[in-house]
Amino acid sequence: MTDRSTYRLHCFAQSGNSYKVALMLELAGAPWTLVWNDFFNGGTRDPAFKALNAMAEAPVLEHEGKVLTQSGVILDYLAGTLGRYGPANDDERREILRWTLWDNHKLTANIATLRWMVQFNPEGTFDPAVIAFLRSRARGALKTLESHLADRRYVVVDRLTIADFSLVGYLYFPTEFGVDWKEYPAVGAWTARIAAEPGWKHPYDLMPGHPLPSKAA
Amino acid sequence: MTDRSTYRLHCFAQSGNSYKVALMLELAGAPWTLVWNDFFNGGTRDPAFKALNAMAEAPVLEHEGKVLTQSGVILDYLAGTLGRYGPANDDERREILRWTLWDNHKLTANIATLRWMVQFNPEGTFDPAVIAFLRSRARGALKTLESHLADRRYVVVDRLTIADFSLVGYLYFPTEFGVDWKEYPAVGAWTARIAAEPGWKHPYDLMPGHPLPSKAA
Repeated sequence: MTDRSTYRLHCFAQSGNSYKVALMLELAGAPWTLVWNDFFNGGTRDPAFKALNAMAEAPVLEHEGKVLTQSGVILDYLAGTLGRYGPANDDERREILRWTLWDNHKLTANIATLRWMVQFNPEGTFDPAVIAFLRSRARGALKTLESHLADRRYVVVDRLTIADFSLVGYLYFPTEFGVDWKEYPAVGAWTARIAAEPGWKHPYDLMPGHPLPSKAA
Repeated sequence: MTDRSTYRLHCFAQSGNSYKVALMLELAGAPWTLVWNDFFNGGTRDPAFKALNAMAEAPVLEHEGKVLTQSGVILDYLAGTLGRYGPANDDERREILRWTLWDNHKLTANIATLRWMVQFNPEGTFDPAVIAFLRSRARGALKTLESHLADRRYVVVDRLTIADFSLVGYLYFPTEFGVDWKEYPAVGAWTARIAAEPGWKHPYDLMPGHPLPSKAA
């Protein structure tokens, strides 16, 4: 029997997009239930899951009869229902949206795909030129974020917002996609600042499914 | 002397992201001024432009002292100031955001990069494996959009919204990135439906800078 106030998050440990939402729920102390999606065995392509999300992607959040998809939408929704990490005014709202869109377009889009290719598939599965292309795009995006964070503690204003949750989603796996924060010290310091929040957990400790039963290498 | 009510859009004809905003301004009959950005000669990397947008991307909208970047943010802003093409309630607002994020992550991100490589650079500039990779991702995204539009006239509700403007941004250049709408008939019909709006113009007719002085081939 699910309490109607409980958030049900469909997710898996390796999903940085799921982590964006899971971290917010955890830091806010929200009542939430994790529903493991067996992504590596086709879990997001399963007809029952696609009935929840035709985009066939995790995360999916169920709450009070609503089914929400796209991490940026879920973060915006939770800022409203939890009354935490949201904008204080319209200018902040737009600035949060700006960085969330940029994350989806330039940062997460490249890093998530790059990491998937190099970390979760046997070497040689993908063309080295494609990997090099994604690595170059990922580095370009990290450079933009590094400049932005050089003189800021958080991305939008001087407190944690949902834009930080969006952008940081894949950044606790730097070795998996081959980046050392020494190259991007402001980004590294900001990830550490978020990791110092009470209750913070690494994605592999927060969500189910890690380690994979048989890791490809 | 610029009327303070006038929207100033920094854009160029080849930019589908600029077109998302330009088309909305034009269809809404808003008072707007176009400021051509010489992208192909480094216009978005120019220090004066980067002072407007550190992300070094078009479009940028100036209005009443505000400087707005990211097409998704600008569309959201204009829905407010123009009172057109926005959501009627919170569910619609989230559904618009969902498709705008998906567009940035899955559709525009792949199609814009693919088109740039194959249309605006000499053959052989980019590795064929990278082009094939982007083509496959673009086709996957078009397939998702095709299923969604199979039984809908517009993306979110039965009227034009800013989600349609976002998603259609690059879709009037199908031959440039090698797609025939016969393969995606619902997408093709939807682009034609938008093109039938009074005042519609193709991006090359709406914004300055087409054709390029010397087209690479």
